[in-house]
Amino acid sequence: MTALDLNSDLGESFGRWVLGDDEAMLGLVTSANVACGFHAGDPTTLRRTCTAAVERGVVVGAQVGYRDLAGFGRRFIDVGPNELADDIVYQIGALDGMCRVAGTAVRYVKPHGALYNAIVHHEAQAAAVVAAVRDYSPELPVLGLPGSAFLRAAEQAGLRTVGEFFVDRGYTPSGTLVPRSEPGAMLHDPAEVTARVLRLVDKGVVASVDGTDLDVLAESACVHGDSPGAVEMARAVRDGLAAAGVTVQAFT
Amino acid sequence: MTALDLNSDLGESFGRWVLGDDEAMLGLVTSANVACGFHAGDPTTLRRTCTAAVERGVVVGAQVGYRDLAGFGRRFIDVGPNELADDIVYQIGALDGMCRVAGTAVRYVKPHGALYNAIVHHEAQAAAVVAAVRDYSPELPVLGLPGSAFLRAAEQAGLRTVGEFFVDRGYTPSGTLVPRSEPGAMLHDPAEVTARVLRLVDKGVVASVDGTDLDVLAESACVHGDSPGAVEMARAVRDGLAAAGVTVQAFT
Amino acid sequence: MTALDLNSDLGESFGRWVLGDDEAMLGLVTSANVACGFHAGDPTTLRRTCTAAVERGVVVGAQVGYRDLAGFGRRFIDVGPNELADDIVYQIGALDGMCRVAGTAVRYVKPHGALYNAIVHHEAQAAAVVAAVRDYSPELPVLGLPGSAFLRAAEQAGLRTVGEFFVDRGYTPSGTLVPRSEPGAMLHDPAEVTARVLRLVDKGVVASVDGTDLDVLAESACVHGDSPGAVEMARAVRDGLAAAGVTVQAFT
Amino acid sequence: MTALDLNSDLGESFGRWVLGDDEAMLGLVTSANVACGFHAGDPTTLRRTCTAAVERGVVVGAQVGYRDLAGFGRRFIDVGPNELADDIVYQIGALDGMCRVAGTAVRYVKPHGALYNAIVHHEAQAAAVVAAVRDYSPELPVLGLPGSAFLRAAEQAGLRTVGEFFVDRGYTPSGTLVPRSEPGAMLHDPAEVTARVLRLVDKGVVASVDGTDLDVLAESACVHGDSPGAVEMARAVRDGLAAAGVTVQAFT
Repeated sequence: MTALDLNSDLGESFGRWVLGDDEAMLGLVTSANVACGFHAGDPTTLRRTCTAAVERGVVVGAQVGYRDLAGFGRRFIDVGPNELADDIVYQIGALDGMCRVAGTAVRYVKPHGALYNAIVHHEAQAAAVVAAVRDYSPELPVLGLPGSAFLRAAEQAGLRTVGEFFVDRGYTPSGTLVPRSEPGAMLHDPAEVTARVLRLVDKGVVASVDGTDLDVLAESACVHGDSPGAVEMARAVRDGLAAAGVTVQAFT
Repeated sequence: MTALDLNSDLGESFGRWVLGDDEAMLGLVTSANVACGFHAGDPTTLRRTCTAAVERGVVVGAQVGYRDLAGFGRRFIDVGPNELADDIVYQIGALDGMCRVAGTAVRYVKPHGALYNAIVHHEAQAAAVVAAVRDYSPELPVLGLPGSAFLRAAEQAGLRTVGEFFVDRGYTPSGTLVPRSEPGAMLHDPAEVTARVLRLVDKGVVASVDGTDLDVLAESACVHGDSPGAVEMARAVRDGLAAAGVTVQAFT
Repeated sequence: MTALDLNSDLGESFGRWVLGDDEAMLGLVTSANVACGFHAGDPTTLRRTCTAAVERGVVVGAQVGYRDLAGFGRRFIDVGPNELADDIVYQIGALDGMCRVAGTAVRYVKPHGALYNAIVHHEAQAAAVVAAVRDYSPELPVLGLPGSAFLRAAEQAGLRTVGEFFVDRGYTPSGTLVPRSEPGAMLHDPAEVTARVLRLVDKGVVASVDGTDLDVLAESACVHGDSPGAVEMARAVRDGLAAAGVTVQAFT
Repeated sequence: MTALDLNSDLGESFGRWVLGDDEAMLGLVTSANVACGFHAGDPTTLRRTCTAAVERGVVVGAQVGYRDLAGFGRRFIDVGPNELADDIVYQIGALDGMCRVAGTAVRYVKPHGALYNAIVHHEAQAAAVVAAVRDYSPELPVLGLPGSAFLRAAEQAGLRTVGEFFVDRGYTPSGTLVPRSEPGAMLHDPAEVTARVLRLVDKGVVASVDGTDLDVLAESACVHGDSPGAVEMARAVRDGLAAAGVTVQAFT
């Protein structure tokens, strides 16, 4: 691999509550997964984030989630496929409106939190997200976990699929993320994380929590923006890639 | 006048709660002011309404309001102009997304409830709504009260302005609506309402609550869809217009 | 059995949206499961319902649910046990405040919708609801499905448990409710429903969808208040019980 | 004055979003105005805050506000008096439930944000808040701005009224707070703020933004918990009072 996209979840403040350092992250990533108001993100935050992304040349994607502000979209909700598809269209449209007044458009879709995790396996919800994106625009790529039901369904529907790698999340031997409640879920050392990313770029593999190597087909790497040290972590990864001669650029 | 648009507030159900008979109203009106989720309207309701509007050849407009489900957008909120503009863009974008998957697009914007009433006089909020529409698309007409600060600001901003007449609301001598809490706010007799509409079409005037005639410059007449007898009232008006040889057609 | 409680879900309007005929139902039931604002019920609706219940001598219980207005609490949410318990305490407290100004108090707790169904089997969420009730007041009985994990956990925690029977819902041979999406979920004929209730009172059994008889240990029968014909159905059941010499009275 | 209460707005986190350092503030104040879920505060945050307050011997009051999470309760809402009163009862009850499981009870009521400011002058909303508190419990004191319509109405209704002083907010010559959008709204220097508090304790006066002295009848002083440097500011005030021999204790 000679190029890699860096994506991050942004625009996740809500009213009085600030989350993450969007300004700093927009100086480091190439794709911004901007929240759409259902799990996070009020309209003013979304507009500010989209405007800042345009100024920095960062591509905007719709980070769609369950309707659950209190749970930050991190709780599975057994919403029926039709309603879920409609919720997704609503969110993409709303963010696209914000992009429009900011001088850009939604360029891809990435599910958030519990929805992201659910559609690794949940066929009906995966199909609903795919149907929503395809109905909205078959030109929109989707970002997701390599090997997931979601990316399979998206591919069958003719959408461009983009696999991603989480730079600071632990992987199970089967290629899913270690749940946040379990040990090994999060990596905290920027040097270790950077080395992991470089190994992925070089060999296409990542070590899972039991030490075995996983093949990971990823065009994008997700860096978190909402945890302490997030900016330092992202900067270490970005600098490490540059030092290794890897071009950091948007996948779109 | 030889033609008149009939508009109605639709798509105002929310989840389990049904409001109005959207199907019946879509058979009678030419413009549907579809809620956008802030004062009413869940995504599934919005999509169903937009799809049904397309099937009936009814034009869809964005019925934007304050973020206030519990108050149905009927309570003035002293939201700052920047935040209000962003809330409006978000709502237009969300409904436009729904229109897109339904095969149409948002064709105009009409403020709802307390926002509608506030921007008759509230210059800052009026300007915010105008800025939001213009930033989203300067091609979108706005529907509002003739003589309002809102339509004045919209005209100055270069937007097409469309005055509307409320067929079943009482008017004060100064041309504003009689508040719902006061006597004479609502008219209930379809025959009387129809006669009023025909007089407006014929002479451009309507009698206010004190009996004096008001000049009303209206290209559209608003019929309500959420009160008992709403469908009968709308049908009487539509039939009365047809009998008088007035073409009922969208203003767009 | 010589006595039976009739309970119904009430107070489920929200702002502009009216659901059910609470006034009529309060004339027929002996226990009102009043919504608490998380799946339905704004504060004004709750207060009006509690006040009307006091006037009619109807006992008030807290109908607690998931935080999901858009889904009316009918979608399973994988909320963690601590958060769920806190959500339940909040809801009971809020309704208890409404009861207090209405001259009564919350006398029992009944979970709503998807939460009700989840804790038939979901041990962690069942335990969370039980912990919330016990922490709030160990004197409060809980209403639930006979044989459920919820009633078992409640019994172990020393709470009084009250089994209930749904007069118009189909039962599977294992004693759970036929899901609303499947045939046989709802019974619509008041005469058939009344006969079923009388058979339950007489013999303690109800026929499941496959015709086999189930033993049902119920002190209360749930009549719905939000469907067309709900009031007629409830009246038929109440009259049928009276005619058979069964006293309709609260279980508390 | 030989004693003063220190109060602070706490429990204002919501789900994933953390606001302020409640733990640190609970070590400094004697009264905690805990949010009730309408402008801020999820149930888990409320419970944690109430439990921590009990452990520290801090008294809990209900910080009631408009239903406006997106606006953090800082935007005036023209809600009718009946609905406002019901919203207030709901919030007090909910927090009282949380207090109950934490081993305490709501001991006073303090309106928040835009509601606080509105009822300095807005007679109908002031009366609604008073009616809600009195209906809930005539034993509950209310905390508010000296000279406000709210405290006048509360006094007339027989409630105990407690005036408060904002240690770090500028005052207009008429005794209201300088709006946050204007210069002089906030004081940032702990030494200056502490000197102001000590002068208030000593002489009962505070200098307004134009330099004239105001008489302020206050039994409690409000220190903010949500701004940068909030904890340092509160500690400086507390230490300054101790050094001057003033007892810091709850007003209840």
